[in-house]
Amino acid sequence: MTRHDGRAIEQLRPVQMETNYLMHPEGSVLIQVGNTKVICTATIEDRVPGFLRGQGKGWITAEYSMLPRATAERTQRDASRGKINGRTMEIQRLIGRALRAIVDLESLGEKTVWIDCDVIQADGGTRTASITGAFVALTQALVKYNEVKPFAKFPIVDFLAATSVGILEEIGPVVDLNYVEDVAAAVDMNLVMTGDGRFVEIQGTGEEATFSRDELNTLLSLGEKGIQELIAIQKKVLGEAANLVRSMKEEA
Amino acid sequence: MTRHDGRAIEQLRPVQMETNYLMHPEGSVLIQVGNTKVICTATIEDRVPGFLRGQGKGWITAEYSMLPRATAERTQRDASRGKINGRTMEIQRLIGRALRAIVDLESLGEKTVWIDCDVIQADGGTRTASITGAFVALTQALVKYNEVKPFAKFPIVDFLAATSVGILEEIGPVVDLNYVEDVAAAVDMNLVMTGDGRFVEIQGTGEEATFSRDELNTLLSLGEKGIQELIAIQKKVLGEAANLVRSMKEEA
Amino acid sequence: MTRHDGRAIEQLRPVQMETNYLMHPEGSVLIQVGNTKVICTATIEDRVPGFLRGQGKGWITAEYSMLPRATAERTQRDASRGKINGRTMEIQRLIGRALRAIVDLESLGEKTVWIDCDVIQADGGTRTASITGAFVALTQALVKYNEVKPFAKFPIVDFLAATSVGILEEIGPVVDLNYVEDVAAAVDMNLVMTGDGRFVEIQGTGEEATFSRDELNTLLSLGEKGIQELIAIQKKVLGEAANLVRSMKEEA
Amino acid sequence: MTRHDGRAIEQLRPVQMETNYLMHPEGSVLIQVGNTKVICTATIEDRVPGFLRGQGKGWITAEYSMLPRATAERTQRDASRGKINGRTMEIQRLIGRALRAIVDLESLGEKTVWIDCDVIQADGGTRTASITGAFVALTQALVKYNEVKPFAKFPIVDFLAATSVGILEEIGPVVDLNYVEDVAAAVDMNLVMTGDGRFVEIQGTGEEATFSRDELNTLLSLGEKGIQELIAIQKKVLGEAANLVRSMKEEA
Amino acid sequence: MTRHDGRAIEQLRPVQMETNYLMHPEGSVLIQVGNTKVICTATIEDRVPGFLRGQGKGWITAEYSMLPRATAERTQRDASRGKINGRTMEIQRLIGRALRAIVDLESLGEKTVWIDCDVIQADGGTRTASITGAFVALTQALVKYNEVKPFAKFPIVDFLAATSVGILEEIGPVVDLNYVEDVAAAVDMNLVMTGDGRFVEIQGTGEEATFSRDELNTLLSLGEKGIQELIAIQKKVLGEAANLVRSMKEEA
Amino acid sequence: MTRHDGRAIEQLRPVQMETNYLMHPEGSVLIQVGNTKVICTATIEDRVPGFLRGQGKGWITAEYSMLPRATAERTQRDASRGKINGRTMEIQRLIGRALRAIVDLESLGEKTVWIDCDVIQADGGTRTASITGAFVALTQALVKYNEVKPFAKFPIVDFLAATSVGILEEIGPVVDLNYVEDVAAAVDMNLVMTGDGRFVEIQGTGEEATFSRDELNTLLSLGEKGIQELIAIQKKVLGEAANLVRSMKEEA
Repeated sequence: MTRHDGRAIEQLRPVQMETNYLMHPEGSVLIQVGNTKVICTATIEDRVPGFLRGQGKGWITAEYSMLPRATAERTQRDASRGKINGRTMEIQRLIGRALRAIVDLESLGEKTVWIDCDVIQADGGTRTASITGAFVALTQALVKYNEVKPFAKFPIVDFLAATSVGILEEIGPVVDLNYVEDVAAAVDMNLVMTGDGRFVEIQGTGEEATFSRDELNTLLSLGEKGIQELIAIQKKVLGEAANLVRSMKEEA
Repeated sequence: MTRHDGRAIEQLRPVQMETNYLMHPEGSVLIQVGNTKVICTATIEDRVPGFLRGQGKGWITAEYSMLPRATAERTQRDASRGKINGRTMEIQRLIGRALRAIVDLESLGEKTVWIDCDVIQADGGTRTASITGAFVALTQALVKYNEVKPFAKFPIVDFLAATSVGILEEIGPVVDLNYVEDVAAAVDMNLVMTGDGRFVEIQGTGEEATFSRDELNTLLSLGEKGIQELIAIQKKVLGEAANLVRSMKEEA
Repeated sequence: MTRHDGRAIEQLRPVQMETNYLMHPEGSVLIQVGNTKVICTATIEDRVPGFLRGQGKGWITAEYSMLPRATAERTQRDASRGKINGRTMEIQRLIGRALRAIVDLESLGEKTVWIDCDVIQADGGTRTASITGAFVALTQALVKYNEVKPFAKFPIVDFLAATSVGILEEIGPVVDLNYVEDVAAAVDMNLVMTGDGRFVEIQGTGEEATFSRDELNTLLSLGEKGIQELIAIQKKVLGEAANLVRSMKEEA
Repeated sequence: MTRHDGRAIEQLRPVQMETNYLMHPEGSVLIQVGNTKVICTATIEDRVPGFLRGQGKGWITAEYSMLPRATAERTQRDASRGKINGRTMEIQRLIGRALRAIVDLESLGEKTVWIDCDVIQADGGTRTASITGAFVALTQALVKYNEVKPFAKFPIVDFLAATSVGILEEIGPVVDLNYVEDVAAAVDMNLVMTGDGRFVEIQGTGEEATFSRDELNTLLSLGEKGIQELIAIQKKVLGEAANLVRSMKEEA
Repeated sequence: MTRHDGRAIEQLRPVQMETNYLMHPEGSVLIQVGNTKVICTATIEDRVPGFLRGQGKGWITAEYSMLPRATAERTQRDASRGKINGRTMEIQRLIGRALRAIVDLESLGEKTVWIDCDVIQADGGTRTASITGAFVALTQALVKYNEVKPFAKFPIVDFLAATSVGILEEIGPVVDLNYVEDVAAAVDMNLVMTGDGRFVEIQGTGEEATFSRDELNTLLSLGEKGIQELIAIQKKVLGEAANLVRSMKEEA
Repeated sequence: MTRHDGRAIEQLRPVQMETNYLMHPEGSVLIQVGNTKVICTATIEDRVPGFLRGQGKGWITAEYSMLPRATAERTQRDASRGKINGRTMEIQRLIGRALRAIVDLESLGEKTVWIDCDVIQADGGTRTASITGAFVALTQALVKYNEVKPFAKFPIVDFLAATSVGILEEIGPVVDLNYVEDVAAAVDMNLVMTGDGRFVEIQGTGEEATFSRDELNTLLSLGEKGIQELIAIQKKVLGEAANLVRSMKEEA
């Protein structure tokens, strides 16, 4: 039994990242993971939120949104409903938290980096594509900043990418679920890991279902392999800029 | 004295429209006018808002938004502020009204067409690019619908496009202002016209300034010429689909 | 064929303006245009919004509202709905922009003038009556301020009034549409002009209709004539206060 | 020691009520109590809120608002702040409750009467003026309705008016406080009573102060006398329409 | 005819107050009045709202809420509805105002005391139980503060408690209505009084009904007696802390 | 090195659950886990949200809130801020999802169960205490419902509880973190598991930190042991009611 789009169990969808996708932001990427397309931008602001003021530390915050017709059915805009829905909040908190795990906020200094992830087209895995793309946009923005006003220590300490894993009824554990698989999956898990293979975030959920520790282990292994492939692509896309991250890792 | 980007007074910026830009919507276009890029989609819904129910008429409504980093400085999302700002409202009302002028709502029947215009990159003229692109997305969506469930009469009765005109201090009246020109212009006017050269909307505003009737006439002539060029591009992009609109015009 | 209320094509409805209508505001007018009644007030505040601070310039901002029973059917209050509707936003932006066109914001200095237009009774033309009345309230407020703390240069540089024009099916172009005419009109246009006969704002809209350039020219001529009549009334109502505006015009 | 405006302790300010003040509403009154001016309107809607549906009973609901420049300092609109403030809510709940006390909701039948009280100019006592004026607007609206579609039993069972009483430091208890007195008063009480001299509402508050039972008794007597004078004026203003209320009282 | 729970007309329900109910707040009480249970807390903040800044005076503000299942039917949370309902606003304004009447805000100094009253279980009289409990939480918080940073003059100048009274159809006036009685009562009155027997607040309302001055007098006497009993319980619960309030009263 | 409150690494804090804590709800529990106290209630409503209507399935939805002074510093109410914050949303979505995993929604039928978790006092682990307590309230509510209107099949198919695990710098992995530990922990993980030892939810987060797969395994083992202890307590507290859940498990 193979996956409905012919992929092997441990096979990611085709991944592309187009950097400098937009003319205005300091860092911007169009990431495509299969049919999922997300524009990720990074904006550096020279001040921090109130709760951090005067502590010499920076902050990274993220916002996530989908175009109304990123989806098969039109979704109402949060702005029209007058409030941000729960799913959106959950995702933007996840993106910000994930990126903060590989940034040394002291080295960043009193700056806020705004990450914006706007889903242009959705076909499953928008939150993990957002994290993977946002890492590249963030790196570019900080590298550019570093050229003009060099940091004492470059603040990004490791690579970071994310993918989803899940359990399909007739196939079992698979990596990088597209929308059709995501809807069908009994268990749905998002993994965020570093270049060093350490976990930053595990969010596994039984959708009206449960999973055993053995199943969990298979899922983690699948995810780990997929994330290392994504990080290899990030390195290629970032080119020389990746060296600054690499050098931080060696120092650490 | 020439324009800062070397264009002649009556010269539009380069225009491209990529149709079927997204996989989900019934109609979708990426329109580029110079550096301004807008994704326009059209969604057909088989019901009408409350105030029209039971009248056998359809409706067209539009929503407009900008990505936070479509602009040079990051703009706060309407969803984060919890309300839609006045400029956004004005623009989305304009887009909807403009499209309704070339649609026979009785022929459309009890359907709502949702137009979504999302500005990916802004460099002046986002509202007029939205209208020009939205017309193409709308036409494609209705042509596709017509193939499956033919209308008694195809509801689009003419072509429709829009551009801006304005008065620059040292140059005088010009067409299709980019952002730098828009900020500098003393008078700013948006024109929406049909394939037949009739006006649908004139919105002219002195920005802490005024203009004479002679100046107005020059602006109108510049705009008219630019809009006919845009409509020519629409026809090319739409290909055969344009014939349905053409045949409606001959009937009318 | 005559208009349903017996007016000639180029005839305004009876206009009255009662100045100092309220005891508290620095400037206040009850303007009546036929059955349309609007209370306009002007409030001078000795500070400017954030985006203007420290630039030595002032600002004029407007708010517009209708009593729930200004209309034939009761309208829900914006405050009850928890947000300002699109039409209201559009109108209050228009009023503010129009008044800023005849005020020299540098001469005004770091002050904000709040214009409030509250429609007590609506019978068509509420936005243009608001502008015409607001000009008088604004002038009175600045004249009063000038008596106590004289401006180096009085900031109002010209008169300003507004009216509507439109095209009725069996009658053709007319000026100053009442509600019945407004609903019936295929084309609806609001014009704001100065005492010098220059345009400040043209907002013409085909309501599910279009209009030719010839029709546009007739509409502009009708509107121009009506606005000059309104400005004559403003001068009479303002009495001596009008001289300060006049002297600015001669200087300019 | 006399009151600062020369009134005796038990003397109301001059009261005027102009009925049919607006052309659209079923009932409308401009009430003036001294310098306080409120437009009160009554709108009859042929349905009831959800919680009353199908019970054969009607409802009366009220909304209250002040123009921004009804007051000496400009007040921000509730609509701009995006929510109704606590004071406004308290007042509109009071007005609705007060009117419901003299209406037989069964006789009214499945209808909602919307009362709108809009303060044009404020000089103390706006909530009590609103109630006194709203009673007249309500009566007119129901009398007009009764002429077209007679009620089995006319639903208003008694007259209703309201005034304020308070304790001034150097003068003691007084009736109908204007704004200056209201600010100075240690105790502030609003009374709503019927034509029969029965209480509908007592809202007495020590503003960072307290009051004794004797003081309370004096306040109640002052208020009772003032309210009966207001009801006498209502009867005169209502003319024949008052008879319908009177006949209900005799029946009751 | 006796009350449905067997109480005499002038009999309060059993009252308990458990102080230091929570570990974090400076003052906290669980008050039970029959089946009504409210958690009251007091929080001292070393700054005042904007309108009081720099005046050397303090402020007391209150918030009130009910758990969704404090009631027989589940009530939707204000937070889910996105706005505070009118009843809640009215109650929290009442609680704050009542407490301010027995606090010398000058002696308090530039501090804000936040009172939070959260109804865990509702069976009538939640607002009066909130006031009675909040007084105890407030006193404890200020006594604790006084131990560390003694006030020049202890700011609480008298005791304060509240109860409800009402008129039941077959029984007449009664004190401390439970929910069943509250729903049935034609007249509903909340009384707030001081240890000295002076009124702070009277809020009497005919619910689609009215009441005579004689009835009012009976209600006031019943309430007065009940409130003195509640104050006796407060004194016992507060123990030594009550002495600080007592000494202020003797001084005054 | 021992934990600051003297607990062993694998030791839960003392746990108590007081069932039928409130008089109104169908199910209600006060759960205490150390100093953390949460009131959990379950309300059964005989209808489902729109997206489920007509499918014969039920739904479980949860709301979570904290009293302002559940925490050391006063937290502003969501209702005052006018919107629910991201953390609250994330938690209430987690609670609902977790409970749905052990309920057979088809057996439940077209009913919604509302779970309300209100934190009275917070000392770490409020979301896991909410889930553990909510399971008991839910079971009681459904058992009570079953007595009156027996389900064809009792809808709860397994037990469910939750705890937190984390990594402390000098101690390493521990279970059931209190607030002090939670703030200090580099890694924070919430686990939800069934009586059968299967996972329902894993949410592990490096707070500006990362963790290895070995560390993950230790955390999972600690959590598993703690959750089985919590389920043993649930069974004792539920008494006979637990049998209905047990019998479902045997059937399954």
